[in-house]
Amino acid sequence: MKIDIMTLFPELIDSVMQQSIIGRAQTKGLIQIHAVNIRDYALDKHHKADDSPYGGGRGMVMLPEPLYLCHAALTGGVHIHTVMMSAQGAPFTQAKARELLAQEHIILVCGHYEGVDQRFIDACVDEEISIGDFVLTGGEIPAMAVADAVCRMVPGVLPDETAFQQESHWDGLLEYPQYTHPAQWRGRDVPEVLLSGHHANITRWRRKMSLKRTRRDRPDLFAAFQPQDKQDVKILAELEKEP
Amino acid sequence: MKIDIMTLFPELIDSVMQQSIIGRAQTKGLIQIHAVNIRDYALDKHHKADDSPYGGGRGMVMLPEPLYLCHAALTGGVHIHTVMMSAQGAPFTQAKARELLAQEHIILVCGHYEGVDQRFIDACVDEEISIGDFVLTGGEIPAMAVADAVCRMVPGVLPDETAFQQESHWDGLLEYPQYTHPAQWRGRDVPEVLLSGHHANITRWRRKMSLKRTRRDRPDLFAAFQPQDKQDVKILAELEKEP
Repeated sequence: MKIDIMTLFPELIDSVMQQSIIGRAQTKGLIQIHAVNIRDYALDKHHKADDSPYGGGRGMVMLPEPLYLCHAALTGGVHIHTVMMSAQGAPFTQAKARELLAQEHIILVCGHYEGVDQRFIDACVDEEISIGDFVLTGGEIPAMAVADAVCRMVPGVLPDETAFQQESHWDGLLEYPQYTHPAQWRGRDVPEVLLSGHHANITRWRRKMSLKRTRRDRPDLFAAFQPQDKQDVKILAELEKEP
Repeated sequence: MKIDIMTLFPELIDSVMQQSIIGRAQTKGLIQIHAVNIRDYALDKHHKADDSPYGGGRGMVMLPEPLYLCHAALTGGVHIHTVMMSAQGAPFTQAKARELLAQEHIILVCGHYEGVDQRFIDACVDEEISIGDFVLTGGEIPAMAVADAVCRMVPGVLPDETAFQQESHWDGLLEYPQYTHPAQWRGRDVPEVLLSGHHANITRWRRKMSLKRTRRDRPDLFAAFQPQDKQDVKILAELEKEP
């Protein structure tokens, strides 16, 4: 997986993407994340990348030409799926992360200031993605979220290759609660079933907790959930009798 | 505004939060963002912060005691609103960002690995927040998103204090398209109305574009939108006649 990130703050991206799990995966050559400074493609000696908006209004808008030249340098004339990080975009989801993973090479564009000249978007951007209904100072944090979500699914990046398949949002349920040592801690005990060694009971308890938590905290996900097997059907019947 | 971030990767947080707009606001003393290493509160000489889960399963779970001691060192026994970044949490929104801004001092906890011992959450966490229905390698990027969204609303952080009030998601509409120089660019022109100098027409055009874009890309937001004035009512009537 190769991800190029067009940004005014490449050091910020590099400092995060060279650390932790994603950093180790880059060192191993499993993924490549490359931050490119849009300002390097500015036309004047001051490396100006923004100007005031036509029609007036506050703030600055990113100039189309430096964005275009930066993008062209990355694509070399070949089409590469290009995503603009934008509050106007479609919500980012795990399904979208899987879709981007299948592209193998993507370009993420980080907006800043009041926005980006619409003509660059019309000319070069395949889709706009938003990580949520909140406003940030720039597209860098959203781009890192997308890069992280996509790259962790590349085989070998996580310690256990099958790890990501069992996690939240893959089957539309929240995760069950986790417990580790000690068994008794500041007056709070680990649930007995987890100490029992009875694997079928543990699996069933965890599934029930997932379903219960999803019903309580994410009724939208719970409403969309389809039982996967007979055990799910039974647990759902039990839950109906519980408040 | 003061935000303490409990994490296993404090350098990652610092490197981002010391740059750009948020970095400048910290230098000016308008906000304080403080990353604290949970590992510094580990009990053994190896600074172990995680262990295998009770009941079996992949991966590691963060130990409750280092988290508890780290949290206690930050609060000093006083209640400070504590938010856990978690895929199990309530979706983060601009309304939630405003709510957190009102707290003046918050603690954000970044989970890692397979999760965090549930007893720490029960004992110390006021609420769990998710930035979206996708899975990341850790809570650091979500915590930075929350810190950024909250801090940019602190007066003086953005160049123009009123800036953030006019942006996306404040009135539930997507933003209008932006254009800057040059007026003609690679065969694409800036819309004529923006060059007209007629401010009422420009304002009306921008409002219509916001509504049109919201209808096309975010039917959920469009359905919830309430017209703010007579002009909105007229524009909505026009849109009904357009495909």
